Amino acid sequence: MLGVGVIGYGYWGPNLVRNFMMDAGTRVVAVCDRVEERLAEIRRLYPTVKTTTDARDLFRNSDIDAIAIATPVDTHFDLARDALRAGKHVLVEKPIASTSAQAEQLIEEAARRNLVLMVDHTFVFTGAVRKIQEVVAEESFGKLQYYDSSRVNLGLFQHDVNVLWDLAVHDLSIMDFVIPLSPVAVSATGLSHVPGQPANIAFMTLFFDGNVIAHINVNWLSPVKIRRTLVGGSRRMIVYDDLETSEKVKIYDKGITVTETPDDVRKLLISYRTGDLWSPKVSETEALRLEVAHFRECIEGKAKPVTPGECGLAIVRMLEAADKSMSRRGEAVEL
Amino acid sequence: MLGVGVIGYGYWGPNLVRNFMMDAGTRVVAVCDRVEERLAEIRRLYPTVKTTTDARDLFRNSDIDAIAIATPVDTHFDLARDALRAGKHVLVEKPIASTSAQAEQLIEEAARRNLVLMVDHTFVFTGAVRKIQEVVAEESFGKLQYYDSSRVNLGLFQHDVNVLWDLAVHDLSIMDFVIPLSPVAVSATGLSHVPGQPANIAFMTLFFDGNVIAHINVNWLSPVKIRRTLVGGSRRMIVYDDLETSEKVKIYDKGITVTETPDDVRKLLISYRTGDLWSPKVSETEALRLEVAHFRECIEGKAKPVTPGECGLAIVRMLEAADKSMSRRGEAVEL
Amino acid sequence: MLGVGVIGYGYWGPNLVRNFMMDAGTRVVAVCDRVEERLAEIRRLYPTVKTTTDARDLFRNSDIDAIAIATPVDTHFDLARDALRAGKHVLVEKPIASTSAQAEQLIEEAARRNLVLMVDHTFVFTGAVRKIQEVVAEESFGKLQYYDSSRVNLGLFQHDVNVLWDLAVHDLSIMDFVIPLSPVAVSATGLSHVPGQPANIAFMTLFFDGNVIAHINVNWLSPVKIRRTLVGGSRRMIVYDDLETSEKVKIYDKGITVTETPDDVRKLLISYRTGDLWSPKVSETEALRLEVAHFRECIEGKAKPVTPGECGLAIVRMLEAADKSMSRRGEAVEL
Amino acid sequence: MLGVGVIGYGYWGPNLVRNFMMDAGTRVVAVCDRVEERLAEIRRLYPTVKTTTDARDLFRNSDIDAIAIATPVDTHFDLARDALRAGKHVLVEKPIASTSAQAEQLIEEAARRNLVLMVDHTFVFTGAVRKIQEVVAEESFGKLQYYDSSRVNLGLFQHDVNVLWDLAVHDLSIMDFVIPLSPVAVSATGLSHVPGQPANIAFMTLFFDGNVIAHINVNWLSPVKIRRTLVGGSRRMIVYDDLETSEKVKIYDKGITVTETPDDVRKLLISYRTGDLWSPKVSETEALRLEVAHFRECIEGKAKPVTPGECGLAIVRMLEAADKSMSRRGEAVEL
Repeated sequence: MLGVGVIGYGYWGPNLVRNFMMDAGTRVVAVCDRVEERLAEIRRLYPTVKTTTDARDLFRNSDIDAIAIATPVDTHFDLARDALRAGKHVLVEKPIASTSAQAEQLIEEAARRNLVLMVDHTFVFTGAVRKIQEVVAEESFGKLQYYDSSRVNLGLFQHDVNVLWDLAVHDLSIMDFVIPLSPVAVSATGLSHVPGQPANIAFMTLFFDGNVIAHINVNWLSPVKIRRTLVGGSRRMIVYDDLETSEKVKIYDKGITVTETPDDVRKLLISYRTGDLWSPKVSETEALRLEVAHFRECIEGKAKPVTPGECGLAIVRMLEAADKSMSRRGEAVEL
Repeated sequence: MLGVGVIGYGYWGPNLVRNFMMDAGTRVVAVCDRVEERLAEIRRLYPTVKTTTDARDLFRNSDIDAIAIATPVDTHFDLARDALRAGKHVLVEKPIASTSAQAEQLIEEAARRNLVLMVDHTFVFTGAVRKIQEVVAEESFGKLQYYDSSRVNLGLFQHDVNVLWDLAVHDLSIMDFVIPLSPVAVSATGLSHVPGQPANIAFMTLFFDGNVIAHINVNWLSPVKIRRTLVGGSRRMIVYDDLETSEKVKIYDKGITVTETPDDVRKLLISYRTGDLWSPKVSETEALRLEVAHFRECIEGKAKPVTPGECGLAIVRMLEAADKSMSRRGEAVEL
Repeated sequence: MLGVGVIGYGYWGPNLVRNFMMDAGTRVVAVCDRVEERLAEIRRLYPTVKTTTDARDLFRNSDIDAIAIATPVDTHFDLARDALRAGKHVLVEKPIASTSAQAEQLIEEAARRNLVLMVDHTFVFTGAVRKIQEVVAEESFGKLQYYDSSRVNLGLFQHDVNVLWDLAVHDLSIMDFVIPLSPVAVSATGLSHVPGQPANIAFMTLFFDGNVIAHINVNWLSPVKIRRTLVGGSRRMIVYDDLETSEKVKIYDKGITVTETPDDVRKLLISYRTGDLWSPKVSETEALRLEVAHFRECIEGKAKPVTPGECGLAIVRMLEAADKSMSRRGEAVEL
Repeated sequence: MLGVGVIGYGYWGPNLVRNFMMDAGTRVVAVCDRVEERLAEIRRLYPTVKTTTDARDLFRNSDIDAIAIATPVDTHFDLARDALRAGKHVLVEKPIASTSAQAEQLIEEAARRNLVLMVDHTFVFTGAVRKIQEVVAEESFGKLQYYDSSRVNLGLFQHDVNVLWDLAVHDLSIMDFVIPLSPVAVSATGLSHVPGQPANIAFMTLFFDGNVIAHINVNWLSPVKIRRTLVGGSRRMIVYDDLETSEKVKIYDKGITVTETPDDVRKLLISYRTGDLWSPKVSETEALRLEVAHFRECIEGKAKPVTPGECGLAIVRMLEAADKSMSRRGEAVEL
């Protein structure tokens, strides 16, 4: 039975604790949070779990084999590094760290000690994203053309990161899993409406080789919640709406057909093809449940992380490039 | 009774003809199109209307006082200029011309002859856009923060213009009507998936003074049709969904409240306010019907054009800047 | 070229006129309506069409071969009978007549003169209903289990018929086309909220042999428009939403599996099967256009009516039974 | 601190346990279920809670003051009676019992011992239903006209009760709370598609004095989940869609205006009024959390049950009448 410590019991932490409680191969030994009321709630619900306001209590606890970190982004690096140095396997909330240099160091710290370092890109473990990955990989999808995502709502303003690091990170992690390509450049624009605070609305374009483009629209000031992604292929197109309770993934048999006109070789005829729509059944197992089990199996040596530290690093690099571009009003930054 | 000639009877032309037929103060004298079958259809439906494949027949027809032009963009300038030179008032499809230089010349031609030159920005005449304009102008809306629009579908590929000139032009005309500000710079990205053809997917950011930003997402290769605009204010937020049959405009009493923390002046507390939603009844009168009547009243000297040539010029300038930025992968272009 | 006369130019008449104008094998000779302004509108749009306020002008016009009737229900019988007696083929708006006795007489009048008598059950000519009929007929659909439809909106109150005769008649005509069964009994309930007026809200259950049931919910006092039908089969289930712009028909691979429990033969195990969703492309050709062409082909002897007078009669009988049941607060009435 | 025992840990029981755990004035002493694996799960999550397969262990436990029952309907009566006889306060899942005679006896048992007997009509504690009740009670709503609800999905077939007792019971409990009227008669129709099993599809009409009608459509064999209720008033109309994540309640300023025609006193003019739509913010507090607190306050003598046994009895009477009517194919049964 793997002993687990969880640091951070705010928005996401309770989900981590619950899933580590339910996994048959793990048990939650202790939880750390700075807010005493939250710890009282844990003791009420789970009387056998230890609580503390000092993360070091977890690092030095020999019953703890692995640490899950769900704290503000600017604390990720220190906590993950110290956990690794204490010999604990680490699952860290997205984004893995505040800078790519930090992410690189964490990867190195883990590798040196032969520890598992995984970043919590939860969406990668959903049935919907798994299905999209399959569909895009199939020959029937044709050539990938674009990836376009909106993730907006009236959201919790973060103080330590802008809206790209908070919301677009989800889209980047999904995109990174679904698309077998790496972006070559980024253009981003955005704005903060609160003086002195990070940007709360942002738009990001990623350029790929081979006529592929991606776009991400994120906003903490939207009156409505939108979670919609279009993935365009030359023969199939996907709409992924995460707010749909069923039918999250829809696959359209649509596209264009380009033919040369017989009388004028310079002019192309572009016609439309509209076929059926298909919405495959996708697994509804809670993503975090699968992820927790996967993390355990990686520690047990039975699996290789689907979202290793390198994965988190790649995305932090895209976010850094986006920040740079945003400060230059959209000027493309090479990756 | 004002005599009207219509050039172009493809997608939009039939709507122009029908509305000029129904307006009590205008009558359709003649219609010009290059396709003989379309002319046959007109003669069948409206036996009193003359048909021709030569636009010059309309220019020299003294029964015709005004000409409406609904042809491909790259023919707008020649046709509008010749119509004005023949002393006819002109209503020209959006965008008004292929370049700002052409638009400027049309404005000058019309002014010199004291003729009405109007651009057909139809959405400006819808009940929904009129209502949005009112709401944004009210003090209760607070300070304008952003304008964010998506206009995507599996669309008719244009050969002479890219997707910005075909679709974003609608958003720009609505934005121009609703927002009492002029953009100062544009960043755009996009791509063509058909070699040698204009971009079929594009993303455009407009920067305004005073912490206002606008964004437009257009795509001819989307499997689904989306027509959704968010307009954010500091005290109210609007969602405009043109595909809703009723409730096209929804106004949310939502926002954030920024306060200084008592103990740390550098740290701001941002809290959320969520109130009721209100969807005002909007006029359902066909926009083109109102526009046709307005065009007539302008010719009769009873009104000033809501969408004069200058309006069309302003938007062509934004589109030109976007094209320039797109060719530089998002680098901002000043306006 | 078949000469057509249209009686009634209110809500539906303009669609009839337009489609008879566009059909290459028919021409509209004359239109009759009691309201002079409507006739003026016709003369304006279609200067070659004669107009009159006296239906007899159409009956005695030898250029007219067929008459389409789109007037209030209580005038259907007299107009259709007189048209048939004048030797005209007849297409009559739904419901075909106010009583089954009248419908029977019309069928007889047409048969005696070898004239086409067709009832305008427009939905039967839509791509959606055609597709549903195909799917239900396929073996993969399994055994039909139920048909459940809602058709509500803030609607035009009729003075001569209740909401069943106005709205449920659509559902009955679709059901009659899609389901290869005849109901054996009807139970209906409903109410009028305006004293002295026909019921404006009603609910109707139809019983069939073989464990099949149908239900129709109609309402003129609903704040929202709903047009949704569920058709349940033992292996497939259909949702038909006529307000969807695309994807009107969705087919679900869902159902239950009933097995006997090994230890207790009296107890059945009912488990669920949830598979993919499939939305087939359906023809978007205007239904009335196909219907008008079909009516012409029936007159030309090239086809047999899909919706003959007998079809209209069957539905009037269901409506009469429903009225009877409604007056007895739901007591079943045999058919 | 009130000691609570929970009987039944299937679908609903875990919610009861969780909420009694979280309420500051109650604690869960013991849980009873027949399935040993469920009890193991409880011990895992809540190590301090006792578990048993024998309900009598709860009745005789003096640390337990109140018992919550979430078991199959046909066990409600025996368990609730025994709990009351053991001097425990009782919260019992809906419907309160299998027959009105049983419900009456439970009410009497509770009254005799001065114990709280409450039925778990959870929806009555939702922000949405509370808001609807307020709106209907306001003068601006006008006169109540109808209540029409659909509650369908591919559902868990019950063996001991039909779909009315499983699903319509929710609608009846909401209706009973929202409408200040008692039905005078019931007509119901329905069918079972599995031989020997209770009806899985049913339609129920309730007649009230004063021209008010209610209708409920329930179905365990629907491919889609629908939870929609229309409440019509003469001046306002409500749409309540429980599947909406926000905007569950929409209030329409719509209606009809009935006037006498000046020239013909027998003919009424009915015209339409369409105004704005308003969606009030409703509380999102978990209903069961409020209900658990309310139950506790009733036991503490600080409140009177909103959903006392009498409330459960009234609804069981409606369900019994519906069963009787259904067996007679819709014949109305007086209440």
